Amino acid sequence: MTERSVQWLEDREELRALTQRYSRAIDERDHDVLATLFHPEGSVDGVRGPSTVSDYLAGLRATTPEGSSMHVLGEPLIDLPPGADEGTLDIYAVVHQIPASAGGAHRMLGIRYVDRVVRRDGGWAIFHRQSRMLWARELS
Amino acid sequence: MTERSVQWLEDREELRALTQRYSRAIDERDHDVLATLFHPEGSVDGVRGPSTVSDYLAGLRATTPEGSSMHVLGEPLIDLPPGADEGTLDIYAVVHQIPASAGGAHRMLGIRYVDRVVRRDGGWAIFHRQSRMLWARELS
Amino acid sequence: MTERSVQWLEDREELRALTQRYSRAIDERDHDVLATLFHPEGSVDGVRGPSTVSDYLAGLRATTPEGSSMHVLGEPLIDLPPGADEGTLDIYAVVHQIPASAGGAHRMLGIRYVDRVVRRDGGWAIFHRQSRMLWARELS
Repeated sequence: MTERSVQWLEDREELRALTQRYSRAIDERDHDVLATLFHPEGSVDGVRGPSTVSDYLAGLRATTPEGSSMHVLGEPLIDLPPGADEGTLDIYAVVHQIPASAGGAHRMLGIRYVDRVVRRDGGWAIFHRQSRMLWARELS
Repeated sequence: MTERSVQWLEDREELRALTQRYSRAIDERDHDVLATLFHPEGSVDGVRGPSTVSDYLAGLRATTPEGSSMHVLGEPLIDLPPGADEGTLDIYAVVHQIPASAGGAHRMLGIRYVDRVVRRDGGWAIFHRQSRMLWARELS
Repeated sequence: MTERSVQWLEDREELRALTQRYSRAIDERDHDVLATLFHPEGSVDGVRGPSTVSDYLAGLRATTPEGSSMHVLGEPLIDLPPGADEGTLDIYAVVHQIPASAGGAHRMLGIRYVDRVVRRDGGWAIFHRQSRMLWARELS
């Protein structure tokens, strides 16, 4: 009973770290780390429509955004039954798109990620991500 | 000793989930879920002054806001002594009020919730909420 | 094994509370609480350049900002090996600088804190903080 609870608590810590590692890796454009966070057979249903994880990662590698970004992710709402090998994270994020030069516009996006996560190699990976933009605004 | 610690850790996980369930339920206007998060004999001291939980919930049911909202809640500062059946959550939130049409103004509010929470039916519920608006701005 | 895990989980809870206590103390200008969060022999490398913790705290005591602030800190990315007495927190924060009067500008800052934390007096304290501003904008 206690043993299972400790495992459940540790899993939730790992899942929180997974969301924050995503945030840092996407902002640093660290493609190698990003590849470890998603399941290679998974899929992403994002702003640019649905794609496989490998196409999604290839798309990120192929583009060099102007400016930088800051993905501020809220605490995830974690749905993980005790002992389960998969669960769901519901994450609110505010993404800041920071212009490369002083004159550019600063863009803020409100995004909701719903991630289906699975246990993998002793850790956790995102098997399916649904990413939905709730709003977008510019700070002039 | 360990048993109590595990219970304490699980309680904190439940309390985090409580705050995030509030966030999703208020944004989805899910009145049935909202009713499960507050203690029926509790009270809310919010922007519109103090009221009982039942009046607060009735007020939400009676109003249909234009546009939508996104309640981005920060990690709560949790005060929960080991073994206690009540505690306090101190939560910073940034609430986005998103206009229904493109021309409308996007409102951002900085809010601090101080929630007195109590153990109830094997889970946790908000017995008293003090909600204080720290600032409000419009993104044009 | 389990005992160590529970300790590890409790440490992570303490570290989360440390970040939120900083947030409330800096916004409330509670210098006594702030002094308990930093190691007295530590250092801070912030917006105003590097300094010792005691100089940093003295600088805060010496200045009275106009207006108020709200430090909204995201969930920390915690690097803490099991059994370790030190670790690292990587924290995204959005700081709101709220003007004292209605006509003033509301400033938003995107900040990344990287905190080296150490176990101290049965709790945790910040031994070194690197604070880096990622962006700043005004809401008119």
